[in-house]
Amino acid sequence: MTGAMTADVIADLARGAAVLGTGGGGDPYIGGLLAQQALSTHGPVSTVSLGELPSDSLVLVVAMMGAPTVMVEKLPSLDEVVRPVEALATFLGRPITHVACAEAGGVNSTIPVAAAAALGVPLVDGDGMGRAFPELQMVLPTLYGVTTSPFAFSDEKGNVGVLRTISNHWTERIARVAAVEMGCSIMIAGFPMSGDQAREALVPDSLTHCLSIGRAIRQAQQDKADPVAAAAALLGGREVFAGKVVDVERGTTAGFARGTARIEGTSSTVSLHFQNEHLVARTADQVLVTTPDLIIVLEQDSGEPITTEALRYGQRVRIVAAPSDPRWHGIEALNMVGPRYFGYDMPSVRFDGRVEEYPEVAL
Amino acid sequence: MTGAMTADVIADLARGAAVLGTGGGGDPYIGGLLAQQALSTHGPVSTVSLGELPSDSLVLVVAMMGAPTVMVEKLPSLDEVVRPVEALATFLGRPITHVACAEAGGVNSTIPVAAAAALGVPLVDGDGMGRAFPELQMVLPTLYGVTTSPFAFSDEKGNVGVLRTISNHWTERIARVAAVEMGCSIMIAGFPMSGDQAREALVPDSLTHCLSIGRAIRQAQQDKADPVAAAAALLGGREVFAGKVVDVERGTTAGFARGTARIEGTSSTVSLHFQNEHLVARTADQVLVTTPDLIIVLEQDSGEPITTEALRYGQRVRIVAAPSDPRWHGIEALNMVGPRYFGYDMPSVRFDGRVEEYPEVAL
Repeated sequence: MTGAMTADVIADLARGAAVLGTGGGGDPYIGGLLAQQALSTHGPVSTVSLGELPSDSLVLVVAMMGAPTVMVEKLPSLDEVVRPVEALATFLGRPITHVACAEAGGVNSTIPVAAAAALGVPLVDGDGMGRAFPELQMVLPTLYGVTTSPFAFSDEKGNVGVLRTISNHWTERIARVAAVEMGCSIMIAGFPMSGDQAREALVPDSLTHCLSIGRAIRQAQQDKADPVAAAAALLGGREVFAGKVVDVERGTTAGFARGTARIEGTSSTVSLHFQNEHLVARTADQVLVTTPDLIIVLEQDSGEPITTEALRYGQRVRIVAAPSDPRWHGIEALNMVGPRYFGYDMPSVRFDGRVEEYPEVAL
Repeated sequence: MTGAMTADVIADLARGAAVLGTGGGGDPYIGGLLAQQALSTHGPVSTVSLGELPSDSLVLVVAMMGAPTVMVEKLPSLDEVVRPVEALATFLGRPITHVACAEAGGVNSTIPVAAAAALGVPLVDGDGMGRAFPELQMVLPTLYGVTTSPFAFSDEKGNVGVLRTISNHWTERIARVAAVEMGCSIMIAGFPMSGDQAREALVPDSLTHCLSIGRAIRQAQQDKADPVAAAAALLGGREVFAGKVVDVERGTTAGFARGTARIEGTSSTVSLHFQNEHLVARTADQVLVTTPDLIIVLEQDSGEPITTEALRYGQRVRIVAAPSDPRWHGIEALNMVGPRYFGYDMPSVRFDGRVEEYPEVAL
């Protein structure tokens, strides 16, 4: 998509992004508000596809980092969204030409829209994951040697920091403890990339994809069709379970929203294990699907995505499993975002049930 | 003192600084090594008194931040000492003209010597406290409205950060959690000051004072005189207790070395409570002395200062109490560094036993 983004598409964008967000990336309604406000104040944002991005661009990833349980409580102001970008521009000594999304998510696909509007720069139609993951280093650019540094962060109080680290994992470690101390959610900007680097490392057309999914769900609602089936078709995925939320155990620990939800179906119960995002879906005797493939919880009738922090007892939901970007299935990638990294001693299980063994390697 | 500092005075400097360090600020022997190495590599460092500091100077405070228990285990390299200063100079866009000490302490009075040598700039004969305190905001410049920001930190691995915060206490909070994550000790640079600001806010002639104390102890050792009495006389203080260390309870928590030591005397036992520095000395029924006045533990015969991390069962020690810079006894200052800030519900008790009540005010 190369064109302009206006306030009227934001609800679809945020809904579609929350589907790809696999429970994380923040609430789509709240994320939508900020982008709509920015677009109504600053006018439409131009979007540019990865293919048309000039090679000498300076692309910066902009996002909110923290526990989604907290992010929904303290949505940033536009000033706060822009502050880390400005700190980085000072540090880099040259202006940013484009903004990109780190991940797909209700808040993290709409905050970059707000940032692009406020900064007056185009938004790249692409993102760093094609889904959402909980930690900073978990982006495809890491696999291409793109560093987070220099990396800036700020809070709603006006505190700003800039980091230059020896690895993307160190940026995660330092920024995460700072985020916890600063109130469990901060605004970040980093991963400076040239146009060529962005073209190689980002997931192409992901805003367009989010919009398509968001629209398809809305259209199916209007047509009294099945929004879950419509979403699954666009995702190339399949419905793997349906049932009622009977238990949610949740804590905000070490800066993440971690927990387990139990979904009771007609003949079995699924446990969903999450750290901001859903990581593993399993029954008592079978792992249905794991990270890095997508585990998506949708409201059974409306097909609206339900983020992990919004899971409640009694909700009737359907679980869709869908393939992630194929680059997440390389050995290095699986060591970065596969189930074992998160402490689940199991191979990756693909959206279609295939078991994907992978050797452990030191990153 | 306006002149030149050479390697042969470092042992006296570090010893005297460790006396004023009241148990914190790092081990004088280890701190001395780094300064001696820097001086032998880069030549003598010029020193300049606060009175002769040019008004348009850019003075930067350089220090090691963390738990002294860890600092003694991982003394920084010269590269590491210089790295945060260089990061700040980039951020400020102009070169540093002078280095100053944040506090008096075995490591934190000698690291600035090493920094000045490596950077080729003069060292200010002054420091931010006239003693040592455990937290960043606890410097006289805070009372004069000097901010920590921009503030830089780095670790031995090569990670660097720059902070611009809304208060010196916020710098402490964010830098402290970063320090813990980065291995419990980091190198820092901050509190950029003009010459006029430094003249107003720093404790004058403190390197000279450290040297005098360090020399007096050594001289008394050579003369078979009483080094403890010699130190007490120079400090304007008095010996308040003598005894044997019978118990040390210690933990490295939240980035600090915290604990309690019990010193058994002939007729009573003193408890020393510390957080990097000694904060309260009390018997079962009397508080002898508290922060902000100085509580100094010296080996009974040699008068060598014993830092909190070096306290061991069986050591025979004498405790000297001495007055701190009078500015630490203002109401705002007592709220920042008095016993209540550290969780001891008591008034300040001066070195001479006078009780100093102070109202609590919001900072």
